[in-house]
Amino acid sequence: MNFKMIKYILGRMLGIEAVVLLIPAVVCLIYRESCFTSFLITSAILGVVFLLTGLKAPEDTKIYGKEGFVIVGFAWILWSLFGAIPFTISGSIPFYLDAVFETISGFTTTGSTILSEIEGLPMGILFWRCFTHWIGGMGVLVFVLMLTTLNDKNAMHLMRAEVPGPDKDKIIPKARQNAALLYKMYLVLTVIEVVLLLLGGMNLYDSIVHSFSTAGTGGFSNMNASIGAYDSAYIDGVITIFMILFGVNFNMYFLLLIKDVKSVFKNEELRVYLGIIAVAIAAITINICQMYGGLLHAFRYASFQVAAIISTTGFGTADFDQWPEFSKTVLLMLMMVGASGGSTGGGMKVSRIQMIVKSISREVKQLLHPKSVNVIKVNGKKVSDDAMRGVYIYFFAYMIILAVSTLIVSFNNYDFATTFSSVLTTLNNVGPGINLVGSTCNFGFFSPLSKIVLCLDMLIGRLEIFPFLMIMSPTLWKRKF
Amino acid sequence: MNFKMIKYILGRMLGIEAVVLLIPAVVCLIYRESCFTSFLITSAILGVVFLLTGLKAPEDTKIYGKEGFVIVGFAWILWSLFGAIPFTISGSIPFYLDAVFETISGFTTTGSTILSEIEGLPMGILFWRCFTHWIGGMGVLVFVLMLTTLNDKNAMHLMRAEVPGPDKDKIIPKARQNAALLYKMYLVLTVIEVVLLLLGGMNLYDSIVHSFSTAGTGGFSNMNASIGAYDSAYIDGVITIFMILFGVNFNMYFLLLIKDVKSVFKNEELRVYLGIIAVAIAAITINICQMYGGLLHAFRYASFQVAAIISTTGFGTADFDQWPEFSKTVLLMLMMVGASGGSTGGGMKVSRIQMIVKSISREVKQLLHPKSVNVIKVNGKKVSDDAMRGVYIYFFAYMIILAVSTLIVSFNNYDFATTFSSVLTTLNNVGPGINLVGSTCNFGFFSPLSKIVLCLDMLIGRLEIFPFLMIMSPTLWKRKF
Repeated sequence: MNFKMIKYILGRMLGIEAVVLLIPAVVCLIYRESCFTSFLITSAILGVVFLLTGLKAPEDTKIYGKEGFVIVGFAWILWSLFGAIPFTISGSIPFYLDAVFETISGFTTTGSTILSEIEGLPMGILFWRCFTHWIGGMGVLVFVLMLTTLNDKNAMHLMRAEVPGPDKDKIIPKARQNAALLYKMYLVLTVIEVVLLLLGGMNLYDSIVHSFSTAGTGGFSNMNASIGAYDSAYIDGVITIFMILFGVNFNMYFLLLIKDVKSVFKNEELRVYLGIIAVAIAAITINICQMYGGLLHAFRYASFQVAAIISTTGFGTADFDQWPEFSKTVLLMLMMVGASGGSTGGGMKVSRIQMIVKSISREVKQLLHPKSVNVIKVNGKKVSDDAMRGVYIYFFAYMIILAVSTLIVSFNNYDFATTFSSVLTTLNNVGPGINLVGSTCNFGFFSPLSKIVLCLDMLIGRLEIFPFLMIMSPTLWKRKF
Repeated sequence: MNFKMIKYILGRMLGIEAVVLLIPAVVCLIYRESCFTSFLITSAILGVVFLLTGLKAPEDTKIYGKEGFVIVGFAWILWSLFGAIPFTISGSIPFYLDAVFETISGFTTTGSTILSEIEGLPMGILFWRCFTHWIGGMGVLVFVLMLTTLNDKNAMHLMRAEVPGPDKDKIIPKARQNAALLYKMYLVLTVIEVVLLLLGGMNLYDSIVHSFSTAGTGGFSNMNASIGAYDSAYIDGVITIFMILFGVNFNMYFLLLIKDVKSVFKNEELRVYLGIIAVAIAAITINICQMYGGLLHAFRYASFQVAAIISTTGFGTADFDQWPEFSKTVLLMLMMVGASGGSTGGGMKVSRIQMIVKSISREVKQLLHPKSVNVIKVNGKKVSDDAMRGVYIYFFAYMIILAVSTLIVSFNNYDFATTFSSVLTTLNNVGPGINLVGSTCNFGFFSPLSKIVLCLDMLIGRLEIFPFLMIMSPTLWKRKF
């Protein structure tokens, strides 16, 4: 393990956070808020850390997969630990663990909050809160990648640990150029959303922070009632569409850029993703129709909520905790499914679910006709056994983490729906759960132990489990190479 | 598909049920109860069905795996549909679908009931209810196997579909002799339990029916308060131990018979099974200690309930729905784990969970050291890739069935804990769930649709999923061979 290089890279990453924190500081200045100083102090601390660790590269700069995983894991933790400081110094979130929860929830684009009262907080603080979503969206690493001076081979090891979804190979070569390209697409989509929200009568500040939250599929808002505060069908519609768009594999936008429309239409994951959305909207619309006195109204709220949950954004326009149990169960399932691989969304990812369903159907065929040869194909191409095994193991690890976390959180003695959905929503980076953690509630009441577990679940979910399992594996730290 | 042979074998199986039904009829006679006629009528109907279909073997008697699965699937359904008739004719369960639910719950050794008042029912009816557990325990098929005149090769195809657990190969050869041996061990253990219960002061009838329920890991009782009605530490202890014993792989008893004690001690599944039990008892004892005012009392109730749930029996001595959420969550996890493979218990089986955990740990090692070779071993022997794939796919199919069933049952609009645990407990053949289906409650209030879904879940769980997936697969019925 090349510890010197790990320290060096982490040091540089914290240097970048020092710079990033100046942005909310400027927002404070614009609104003449005193929270300005809290960002400046944190930035200064980070600057010192950078000067101590990130200035001079070690002689041996080679890193491999395992260093990549360690760097990624600790980068998210350190960014969150430092990013939480302004919340506490400014007095907005006095209890530091709560601030860490909020920041991890931000960077991991979860959007679960411990705040019960949001609207009273300074504009600069609320800006930072939503800005963490935007940074987290494409991954702190991709962001960092563009700015650091790592060579491509090292960058590759970081991206392998970082980019969501099972299908990473296509974007790994030429990491820095691709990171830049992905980031440009991300920026352009965000700007379009800001403009469309402005056209709907939302003010500039609100448009920007909500676009940050949508782009990162996070879900923080500067309003207590989330998007419901605007009560505008136009704004609901715009955000619904953008939530769905940010849950699409970014490769699709790349394909559109190079005008390969055919591949986009033929993409199985995209079709299944949109199919699930359509079916879920239809089912919930019918289920809640009576509550909203008409199909059109029901459709508006159902489509918003389905998009918010499957994209793992977690915005709200209605208190879906009041909806019938069937609708709530559909939403819980969507939490688990999550968005597409290679998007900013969380969850298990549509492509993994697809591959799992296909493998069951293959097994049944094989049992019925033992001599037949059945291969699993995605987009017409055979999936390798190794890739399938990766998906299988991911699913198991996911389920076991879900079970163990539920067990620990159950110590708090809240009802099962609260316990289970709080773990489910954090592990999948969604935001709200049901019952006590429903869309109008918050996570403030949990014990410190539960908050720590939920923080870990957010990180585990965001990093797609394995980097964390590796960091916790004794083998990583014991054996020497 | 050899339909004639399927019809012939199913006909013979129903003929056996005609004979089996005479046993509760005799019990009715002993207690001079009028329910005598309801068993006789059902037996007569079954006799006619047998005469029409099971008398003359077709010319082509060859059957393969797919016929085996079809026979097993339909055998359970038909035995349940006919076995439910006495409940309805006698007026004990007037609504036929409820009677079918109760009978499926019996044969699948689940033990979920739709009855709120048990003690008023005729002794013959209650005997039949618990007797279905005993028959179901080793599988209707193993029972039938001993009595029919199938040749060994055909019997093998049936057993492959029937015997629980991933490790079927060892007992498949010489199917009939082994079935007879397994059944003898089953009988001997049951008789020992009856004797021990008699020594504890339980009357003969109660001892027999509770031993039936324990042996089949079912959970029906003739008392409203289940085993709690006796309030005896001795009886609790005896049943706790026997529940654990019937959750052990029957191969262990076979090994003990041939005095291979070493293999028993070295058996990994047994160790993990007992380890899980020990940890769960310790955790719950501490968690409920305050409620019962002392460690000893808490230990008594905790150990009974842990044994009842992990063995998927589902007896109760305490209303665990009143226990803290942590204890309830532990019990929910144990439901999913279930007993050992090759036992009469249900659930996912300890050996499958073990193999899944091992595959995760292998994957982490492989990711850290890509060049290392890691194989998955159970009891010192390498597990083949095919066997692992079988376990993986089982897990996925299990989870998807759990999700889909929860979705359908949620239509009833009961709270999430009720909905989820009712599916969990039936799919794992346990019996009680939490909240509205807690240990002192029943399943009578569900809608007919939910009851049908839960019936299917019981059958799917008991048959370990694949026979059912195959029966529902269009490929089975379409393609001709």
